[in-house]
Amino acid sequence: MKATAKAHTNIALIKYWGKRNERLILPTNSSLSLTLDGFYTTTSVAFHEEFLVDSFMLNDVPVTGEAFNRVTLFLDLLRNLSGKANLFAEVKSTNEVPTAAGFASSASGFAALAAASSRAIGLELSDEELSRLTRQGSGSACRSIYGGFVEWEMGTRSDGLDSHAISVAPASHWDVRVAAVVLSATEKKVSSRAGMKRTVETSPFYQGWLDSIPTDLREIKAAINAKDFEKTGSIAEANCLKMHATTLGANPPFTYWHDTTLRVMQTVQEMRSNGIPAYFTIDAGPNVKVLYLPENEERVKERLQEVPGVNSVTLSKPGPGVTYL
Amino acid sequence: MKATAKAHTNIALIKYWGKRNERLILPTNSSLSLTLDGFYTTTSVAFHEEFLVDSFMLNDVPVTGEAFNRVTLFLDLLRNLSGKANLFAEVKSTNEVPTAAGFASSASGFAALAAASSRAIGLELSDEELSRLTRQGSGSACRSIYGGFVEWEMGTRSDGLDSHAISVAPASHWDVRVAAVVLSATEKKVSSRAGMKRTVETSPFYQGWLDSIPTDLREIKAAINAKDFEKTGSIAEANCLKMHATTLGANPPFTYWHDTTLRVMQTVQEMRSNGIPAYFTIDAGPNVKVLYLPENEERVKERLQEVPGVNSVTLSKPGPGVTYL
Repeated sequence: MKATAKAHTNIALIKYWGKRNERLILPTNSSLSLTLDGFYTTTSVAFHEEFLVDSFMLNDVPVTGEAFNRVTLFLDLLRNLSGKANLFAEVKSTNEVPTAAGFASSASGFAALAAASSRAIGLELSDEELSRLTRQGSGSACRSIYGGFVEWEMGTRSDGLDSHAISVAPASHWDVRVAAVVLSATEKKVSSRAGMKRTVETSPFYQGWLDSIPTDLREIKAAINAKDFEKTGSIAEANCLKMHATTLGANPPFTYWHDTTLRVMQTVQEMRSNGIPAYFTIDAGPNVKVLYLPENEERVKERLQEVPGVNSVTLSKPGPGVTYL
Repeated sequence: MKATAKAHTNIALIKYWGKRNERLILPTNSSLSLTLDGFYTTTSVAFHEEFLVDSFMLNDVPVTGEAFNRVTLFLDLLRNLSGKANLFAEVKSTNEVPTAAGFASSASGFAALAAASSRAIGLELSDEELSRLTRQGSGSACRSIYGGFVEWEMGTRSDGLDSHAISVAPASHWDVRVAAVVLSATEKKVSSRAGMKRTVETSPFYQGWLDSIPTDLREIKAAINAKDFEKTGSIAEANCLKMHATTLGANPPFTYWHDTTLRVMQTVQEMRSNGIPAYFTIDAGPNVKVLYLPENEERVKERLQEVPGVNSVTLSKPGPGVTYL
């Protein structure tokens, strides 16, 4: 009744931006991501009949409050699914997702938790089933079950059975790199969850966002298949700009961008006019991720580190899906 | 056959952003502006039977090229309207719209030209007729016929007869001030005309923009009528953010913002959290205009001048409509 799994974080090239069901975490649009080698979570889960509650240690520190509640609620799903309501879990996680890299650890965290806990409780899940389960812990985590390029198919069913990730191409298909650019000032006034919700409910641009997704997805999958970096990068960059545009129309309006965010965006566009293919994408926060090809690694890193207001630049390659240790 | 007129520039609180007819300059949405005291153009027009072409001096310098062509094309409208095709004009303009204030001079320029030339050629036009004529020289100029708060009613006719400005409230109604914040780096890669056109044709957010205008207009007119500064300012700020959001969805996407633009926007929002009511609006360029009340003039000016990357801050009060000298 014990298992250990390792899962990597992922960066969305076509963004997940809006829920149609908050409880089941069903999205309003399909999304596409690249799983990253550099950032991962390793989680061990052991179920014990003598336990009366779950316990959760993260990097050797006991976790309480909201973070603990999300883990326990997720384990409830598993207890229901396996019909073993009397089992409680001892969860131990180690995060290799440094805060300095500016990634949320919830994607790798819930993917590793879902993989380890489902195996520990005796469920034999396919990747697709595991992805569907993971989704209910953290939406974007469902993409981290797979390595490389991954699509989260939004599905249309109200029970969410058809909402899970699938592999588009493994990490070995194409070595596209990502520089995680973390800014000195990273204060964030609106959480991702709240921002997404406010945008869905109030932005006059939300329908335009949804309408544009099928074309973006079809075109980026063709570009990834053809290893067309310019096309892949420009679709990802344009998709990120559209996501951030929707927040400017929300009521009240907001933006995740700081002045340095814009400076990094303009630096990336400058690199392109200087012949270095590089494209940016930005999640629900001020930090920037930059896509580039291996041959330009040194120049991209150097140029990004020079930008005033940039605190750190961390590089990563495409990474694998969930593995069991 | 000679007349002199003076017209002031205006700043849009609800933006004009898109044309339904490029030749007649018919907009896709109604807009609302405040005419500004500080920035104006004075223009004398004299028609001569012995002239074979028009001449145009701006600040005592002969104008040629594109700017001259726009003036001549506008005078053609007048020659047609008055049935005096054999008359050519001597136009002398003086601009008091300093480049350092970051305003386009086309609004005050075409309003003064329309007023002086129509009177010089012997037409007796009502303000409404003059506004309709001015519109065909430069869209936003049609609002500068009136002082204070002005609405440009988009109209629905294909001949444009119902597309002209009307007065919402005179300058004396309410002393709302505007600080024109000019940045050190003001490079603009996409012109207003081209940006507007690309947005109308390619942005998935354009329909959302149009859909949101009637509510914005209705609410800001009620707020202006009630002299509700918080409401007026927040509607104007939100409307500007929506306009700029539409450009992020264009294909290819673009933005008029620089990093300093964002820094000024955040400074204005900071001022608000520190109890100084101030709101920003931004046209198709990187500079920022800040709305404030007279009692906060010193503090607003001081705070804006402190922002790194700001070159100058120029203040203005509400201004009058066209006058004849």
